[in-house]
Amino acid sequence: MARVLHISASPRGDRSTSRKLAAEFLAAWRDKHPGDTVTDRDVGHNPPAHVTENWIAAAYSPADTHTPEVAAAIAESDKLVDELFAHDVIVVSVPMYNFGVPSTLKAYIDNVVRINRTFKMDPSQPNPYVPLVHGKKLYVLSSSGGAGYGPGGPLAGYNHETTYLQAIFGFIGVTDSTVVLCENANGAPPAKEESLAAAKVAAREVAAA
Amino acid sequence: MARVLHISASPRGDRSTSRKLAAEFLAAWRDKHPGDTVTDRDVGHNPPAHVTENWIAAAYSPADTHTPEVAAAIAESDKLVDELFAHDVIVVSVPMYNFGVPSTLKAYIDNVVRINRTFKMDPSQPNPYVPLVHGKKLYVLSSSGGAGYGPGGPLAGYNHETTYLQAIFGFIGVTDSTVVLCENANGAPPAKEESLAAAKVAAREVAAA
Repeated sequence: MARVLHISASPRGDRSTSRKLAAEFLAAWRDKHPGDTVTDRDVGHNPPAHVTENWIAAAYSPADTHTPEVAAAIAESDKLVDELFAHDVIVVSVPMYNFGVPSTLKAYIDNVVRINRTFKMDPSQPNPYVPLVHGKKLYVLSSSGGAGYGPGGPLAGYNHETTYLQAIFGFIGVTDSTVVLCENANGAPPAKEESLAAAKVAAREVAAA
Repeated sequence: MARVLHISASPRGDRSTSRKLAAEFLAAWRDKHPGDTVTDRDVGHNPPAHVTENWIAAAYSPADTHTPEVAAAIAESDKLVDELFAHDVIVVSVPMYNFGVPSTLKAYIDNVVRINRTFKMDPSQPNPYVPLVHGKKLYVLSSSGGAGYGPGGPLAGYNHETTYLQAIFGFIGVTDSTVVLCENANGAPPAKEESLAAAKVAAREVAAA
């Protein structure tokens, strides 16, 4: 039995395309893995705090030296990192905003990419960054208004979302990832409906694989 | 006489490398252009709100149809877009966080990339996106803990910061951009001090050019 962490980044509810995709994925996942648990981490509606100067001070110093103010600045990050480690499968459902992740999801990332928690430094190595998160699988379910952001697509060079998520999760050690794109969310009929229908099929297939 | 908008994204004060770079740039700029004015937009300490469902509703509907709640959700964005248009030169000073911009700067970007304000859609064109911001010059002053993110560098593929900023500002029409990188902010001596000294020289040269 696996523990699934669903990180959702849309500020919308029922109108969110990425949440529709996630619902499809999770329904298929539960069919296939009825014993699994799913935790919701809704950063779209409850974004983590931005990194502050006290956050940085806390992350780069031993916990037993922290003032109450410094300790408080990193408490939410501690909780989010613990949560990440406590799950086996990470599902990120996210709209593309301006070719990248929404600021809410970046706030989450800035909180969970933590020195000596999710990565560490080994200055003796040519690549000094050592990932500390192992054995997890990442699924990225992305919705974009336009189309052509996939590999080889005309806007692939503008895709700073799924490529970025794979890079940053890979950096902390989550290198096994699968991406489902739902494009044309702002497209004219029938492209919008066709893209959503195809992406739902892809999400179910990926979840059931 | 030009109006300079300095968007600063570090949550730090005196300890911020990107703010040191910006101070150097702006000092050289003022020497060269004594009549210019500089506006500070400190998103590192005063981040704009994240995009919400009401924000989206406001951006995609005529202002005269907005309820007070919807109108309130877009008011800060209106102010930030007006401010952007009111300046001729945009200076972004920013640390690299996890290969990208800090969540605070993404929140700013998500507020100023606005349909029918800074870009519009023309579905009759092969590329339907029409930029609406013209005649401005962008300088990006970026500080990163590691090194090798520049063009051709070993970590260039991980750079989702300066490449992203050029892409998204270019999208709204700010295509004339210059980047100054200050790398090795977390490096061992003497790399850290040498990189900062070289970047300060580069920032002054670029400002005085």
